[in-house]
Amino acid sequence: MEQVGIAALGWAARDATGVLSPYSFSTRVPGDDDVTIKVLYCGICHTDLHFIKNDWRKTIYPVVPGHEIVGIVTGVGGGVKKFKAGDTVGVGYYVDSCRACDCCASGHENYCAGLVATCNGVDHRHGGAVTRGGFADAVVVDERYVVRVPANLPPDRAAPLLCAGVTVYAPMVRHGLNSPGKRLGVVGLGGLGHVAVKFGKAFGMKVTVVSTSPGKHQEAIDILGADEFVLSSDAEQMKAATGTMDGIIDTVSAWHPITPLLALLKPMGQIVVLGAMSKPLELPVAAIVPGGKGVAGSLVGSIADCQAMLDFAGKHGIGAEVEVIQMDYVNTALERLEKNDVRYRFVIDVAGSLGSSA
Amino acid sequence: MEQVGIAALGWAARDATGVLSPYSFSTRVPGDDDVTIKVLYCGICHTDLHFIKNDWRKTIYPVVPGHEIVGIVTGVGGGVKKFKAGDTVGVGYYVDSCRACDCCASGHENYCAGLVATCNGVDHRHGGAVTRGGFADAVVVDERYVVRVPANLPPDRAAPLLCAGVTVYAPMVRHGLNSPGKRLGVVGLGGLGHVAVKFGKAFGMKVTVVSTSPGKHQEAIDILGADEFVLSSDAEQMKAATGTMDGIIDTVSAWHPITPLLALLKPMGQIVVLGAMSKPLELPVAAIVPGGKGVAGSLVGSIADCQAMLDFAGKHGIGAEVEVIQMDYVNTALERLEKNDVRYRFVIDVAGSLGSSA
Repeated sequence: MEQVGIAALGWAARDATGVLSPYSFSTRVPGDDDVTIKVLYCGICHTDLHFIKNDWRKTIYPVVPGHEIVGIVTGVGGGVKKFKAGDTVGVGYYVDSCRACDCCASGHENYCAGLVATCNGVDHRHGGAVTRGGFADAVVVDERYVVRVPANLPPDRAAPLLCAGVTVYAPMVRHGLNSPGKRLGVVGLGGLGHVAVKFGKAFGMKVTVVSTSPGKHQEAIDILGADEFVLSSDAEQMKAATGTMDGIIDTVSAWHPITPLLALLKPMGQIVVLGAMSKPLELPVAAIVPGGKGVAGSLVGSIADCQAMLDFAGKHGIGAEVEVIQMDYVNTALERLEKNDVRYRFVIDVAGSLGSSA
Repeated sequence: MEQVGIAALGWAARDATGVLSPYSFSTRVPGDDDVTIKVLYCGICHTDLHFIKNDWRKTIYPVVPGHEIVGIVTGVGGGVKKFKAGDTVGVGYYVDSCRACDCCASGHENYCAGLVATCNGVDHRHGGAVTRGGFADAVVVDERYVVRVPANLPPDRAAPLLCAGVTVYAPMVRHGLNSPGKRLGVVGLGGLGHVAVKFGKAFGMKVTVVSTSPGKHQEAIDILGADEFVLSSDAEQMKAATGTMDGIIDTVSAWHPITPLLALLKPMGQIVVLGAMSKPLELPVAAIVPGGKGVAGSLVGSIADCQAMLDFAGKHGIGAEVEVIQMDYVNTALERLEKNDVRYRFVIDVAGSLGSSA
């Protein structure tokens, strides 16, 4: 086994300006359980914006973002059982968890208090190094936190599934929003929402997109295959949709009232809130008690959820709608992302931009 | 079949002063599917206060309150299959539903939009008469909305189970808060909360009472059998309980912050809100997203829930803690209830107070 890390080339932000530039570093020394991965593609998630700008006051610079990684295995440790060199694999939002708590023991490690994020995480199991993400040509990850990417999925379109995909898929399954004939509402048509529409249709549900943007009507129906579109600012349309939905996946991060959305639910319906709104939601009990409705949060998904999601995506040929960019466009892409100017996810052609040292 | 209703004597409020006084009326003409019930006991629920004082602006005076009814069957229609004269039965919050919607078809008629409340309901199936509740010596109810009261339950202590009992039992079962070894929080120790503690213990759970009243510590442990008591105003106690509970049944109707309660939940935990708070709850997404937690509403329970709850109560010998009163004390009792001055439920000895015309 090698006793040195992999020499890697990434792009990092050095301070809260959030401007990325080339950055050379060594990965940790690959261990027995580790998979070394040559990064092919990496999606850009809103969370990356928060990390590079230190919005959450916990960024450790330099920070190499990226947690929607698809790559090729270039090496495996002696203890690795699930993967071999040449496999196409994915890495999502986290690369370790405590492996001891109830969440880890029950296969819900995404809720482990000791979760180690794929970028900007403090990797206590490996000497406390700060983790570096997929805006780099190589990553080293314990096989427990690596998933298999089905061969039929284009790797660029698969990359966003590793975070955006599982973030909507996991709560859909958990809350039973995966049954033919049920009616799903998807609020917001961005990186998360557009994948939720695709999963909803693949599950056999009737999918209604709820959006503030009239311009998204046609693309919701024509490109993504939604059944209906409701303009949330149109009182008549909202009224007509009252009580029609079994569940709603709410992907909007900007603050918005949820009472009108709760009215769209059938009795016992559930709204899953995924956005990182800074101001508290207003929740009148009269909006949930008489109908036995619920408001749930959800954070990415377990590794098992992620694998199940990718297998499902492979079976149904579901990939994200992406705009593939080269690494030297990343700063422009981040600016555009901040203005929601992307249909629907930027994906960096990492291997094509950087070559690979892995 | 009789062609006239039953001559009944009840106590009714005539206006929004909410003062009750004797009131003679006829029930509807009992039909083929109807059970005529001599009321033995009727609990007093906070909802009765709302009805008599017209808090919800929909009271039709005179109003005969009462929807926690235990009585004896005195007559059955030709089509009645489940009951016979002499049976001890119960009637809860509602006496009819549309019987056609998805909720009714799936056994969740408590969420039917056409629910007819036991008192102050408009009974469209029977000529649009206003329903009169259990503060009267006789009620006539379709057998579909009547449940059997186990013989071993004292009827006075069983009465509050028909509303308070099923209101906590149904969401406990729905949200999996009925498994040995799980940890349940019960917020508020009134008519609903004290029964939730008893059910929680009977399910084999560890039960923690969360309350603003230090004076309820001893009774929570000694009388109701709770395992722990957390004073919600004590930051140290709240901190010590952080992340310990699988679920919380929140029975408090006065507005209160739920963020500190959400912190008590384990990942994926659920808080069930039952109180009719007039001001919206404040729900920071940061309190539910990282832990995948949820806030759910719930309204009484289905008839099947109610029967299951009574059977469970019978098996475990669970009755409410009650203060039995005569009907002529009812106005005083309602005043005391408004000040939460009752341990834990007033129950009117209807048959003992009024005799019976049924």
